[in-house]
Amino acid sequence: MTGHIYIIGMGPGYKEMMTDEAYQAMKNADVIVGYTVYIDLVKEHFPDKEFFTTPMRQEVERCKACYDFAKDGKIVAFICSGDAGVYGMAAPMYELLPEYESQNITADDITVIPGVTAAISGAAQLGAPINHDFCVISLSDLLTPWETIERRLIAAIQGDFAIAIYNPSSKKRHDYLEKACQIMLDAGTDKNRACGYVENIGREGTKTVVCTLEELKNAQVNMFTTVFVGNSKSEIIQGKLVTKRGYEI
Amino acid sequence: MTGHIYIIGMGPGYKEMMTDEAYQAMKNADVIVGYTVYIDLVKEHFPDKEFFTTPMRQEVERCKACYDFAKDGKIVAFICSGDAGVYGMAAPMYELLPEYESQNITADDITVIPGVTAAISGAAQLGAPINHDFCVISLSDLLTPWETIERRLIAAIQGDFAIAIYNPSSKKRHDYLEKACQIMLDAGTDKNRACGYVENIGREGTKTVVCTLEELKNAQVNMFTTVFVGNSKSEIIQGKLVTKRGYEI
Repeated sequence: MTGHIYIIGMGPGYKEMMTDEAYQAMKNADVIVGYTVYIDLVKEHFPDKEFFTTPMRQEVERCKACYDFAKDGKIVAFICSGDAGVYGMAAPMYELLPEYESQNITADDITVIPGVTAAISGAAQLGAPINHDFCVISLSDLLTPWETIERRLIAAIQGDFAIAIYNPSSKKRHDYLEKACQIMLDAGTDKNRACGYVENIGREGTKTVVCTLEELKNAQVNMFTTVFVGNSKSEIIQGKLVTKRGYEI
Repeated sequence: MTGHIYIIGMGPGYKEMMTDEAYQAMKNADVIVGYTVYIDLVKEHFPDKEFFTTPMRQEVERCKACYDFAKDGKIVAFICSGDAGVYGMAAPMYELLPEYESQNITADDITVIPGVTAAISGAAQLGAPINHDFCVISLSDLLTPWETIERRLIAAIQGDFAIAIYNPSSKKRHDYLEKACQIMLDAGTDKNRACGYVENIGREGTKTVVCTLEELKNAQVNMFTTVFVGNSKSEIIQGKLVTKRGYEI
């Protein structure tokens, strides 16, 4: 076994927002593996490369394909949007690793290359919403019970964290952000808490909005939106959402 | 006023871990501003560039210097280690902005360029410790009351978040990680909770350790260490710290 698997965070989309090591790992790979939408974002940069895609919901199959390519001695670039280790494929890859032990694949054959996740890239668009202690919470209950999500939203408010919310909505979960906002309001958050959201970060049609928590509750968001809830001291300054670090200004 | 200020997250250190837009913004700037240690990390790539540094604790002066350069029509690259909006300079810059309104500087004259923060780059070294909902907490009480930090550690445990801890120690705060671990243990965390830490991410001498929470309590860490505490389901798999996403494996 002379292959190697690079699990790569490609950032939000544009090539300029990838790190150089992410780009180089894709360039040097024998095959680039990923979800169809992400492959389409990088294809133009590597016209002669072999690609392997699987549809949504076939994440484990995608992981296994990487191991199979590596067993054949191939250098694999397994791409994730944002960062590979934030709701990405790094964890399932390591969870599958023991299955491949007998085939002489070890943790040394895997490298995770970090990238800019939406909490970071979305924050840059909105101003500085997570410039102090913060939480990242996904509202997707495909793999997480809703009770756990609810418990985390409440804990985040009790700890007075700034919050970045991923997957605020989808076709089947159109009212999840509204529910999440109500949970935060019920937990004692001021309805005027400074909030904001960003759509299509690092892709065509980026849109940023700053608003109050009450306004956020009724916001139209989709699966490409990242939502931010400030902490109790966050402010909107000249249209930017700012969570203070604490310096005397 | 024809200047512009780019507040740039340079990532952990190595040029390969910067995004291309971060690198290009430094390359195209008239002056690169930053803390001495970070300037030293990028100086070699831009031998002919004008640099402006201020010592530690003079962050607000550094921000004001950026505005002064911009008023003179200069393109400014204001560099932060990791990301510019995670304990970085984006927030104090926006907080100072109203002071410069009368001088025709607006939010349009400022661009934040995101970078790979230590929670992300350290996670990649350790495996996948923050691959589900997570919190980022700094133990530095220079700008934050210790009571707030304690409250956030407890909330993070109550919400069963994975946790990335910044600034776990310094010369004056040598026992803060020990105190933080004790707070988490007192909040009901199992002493065998899967944890880990990384030193000198993306620089010479990177060191990674996986351990239990009890072992973490007595770990020797410094200001260049990033610490990770798994959630209740995190596991150490083949030497890697893995917080599961929830796929059926």
